Amino acid sequence: MSTFATITQFARMLNNLDQWLQSGVAYAEKKGFDPDVLTQARLAPDQYALVQQVQSACDAAKYAAAYLSGQKAPSHPDTEKTIEELRRRIRTCVAYLDTFKASHFAGAEERRVAPPWMEGNAVRGDEYMQRIAVPNFYFHVTTAYAILRHNGVDLGKRDFIGVRSWTEFAAA
Amino acid sequence: MSTFATITQFARMLNNLDQWLQSGVAYAEKKGFDPDVLTQARLAPDQYALVQQVQSACDAAKYAAAYLSGQKAPSHPDTEKTIEELRRRIRTCVAYLDTFKASHFAGAEERRVAPPWMEGNAVRGDEYMQRIAVPNFYFHVTTAYAILRHNGVDLGKRDFIGVRSWTEFAAA
Repeated sequence: MSTFATITQFARMLNNLDQWLQSGVAYAEKKGFDPDVLTQARLAPDQYALVQQVQSACDAAKYAAAYLSGQKAPSHPDTEKTIEELRRRIRTCVAYLDTFKASHFAGAEERRVAPPWMEGNAVRGDEYMQRIAVPNFYFHVTTAYAILRHNGVDLGKRDFIGVRSWTEFAAA
Repeated sequence: MSTFATITQFARMLNNLDQWLQSGVAYAEKKGFDPDVLTQARLAPDQYALVQQVQSACDAAKYAAAYLSGQKAPSHPDTEKTIEELRRRIRTCVAYLDTFKASHFAGAEERRVAPPWMEGNAVRGDEYMQRIAVPNFYFHVTTAYAILRHNGVDLGKRDFIGVRSWTEFAAA
């Protein structure tokens, strides 16, 4: 799995997340409640609400792409309050991920990654991706999905994985 | 990220999951309830309970290692009813993952992967890992974590990622 392939997969999962949010809106309309109530739903009082789960998923993907290509990540302020704004945040993030080509990640696995929150520490690019970026990204998309499921939105594992047909896959 | 590195990461996350279960037991003892109540906890009535989330996380890791190395996966029947039995299931799975060396995965990325549930379809090894095994694995470990958090178990992101010190990482 190349770094580029993982960034591509992050974009794919963010598009899946956008679909789950749309299912949330459809569910709210069917039940007759304001869909934006879902943005403040959470699974535990000291865990992020949906809005922050979506923001964090976007940031995990954005920073992984930036750090591993040696770019400075664009700023995406956490100002979203509605599902539509969250959907726009996802589109902005995916558009950024779509600017990358495989060649941007030449040498990424050996690159030194030292995010501010590591407070002066650094890890190698491949370890950053495998042990921090990937778990962190999936943590936030899965928790967003779980918040929607917990609130009754009709989703299943196929929606999570987002596979519609095996013909989408590289031939084996 | 090599296939072997991803399998190693699955083992690391399963050991983290084992720690979360232990935190669940400690929490139950402190609050004075039977810890095995947690095994049947779930976030939605039509989603798997904790017991199946743990079994599925183990299986996602086990089958990825088996399929991508061309081995037949060992059978681990889903008979667990208690937290202690789930912890044993995790240990059994991790012991299996620990039998693999990098050399077992030579050519894994081009290998044809055709699990029974794909009903005659097949995908290439790298796509199986990136688009099915990794999302599916993290789906189940994160949902297990979310079930525990939802029930009040005292866990945080550091427990999820499982990093104790940056010195554990390959030098950058």
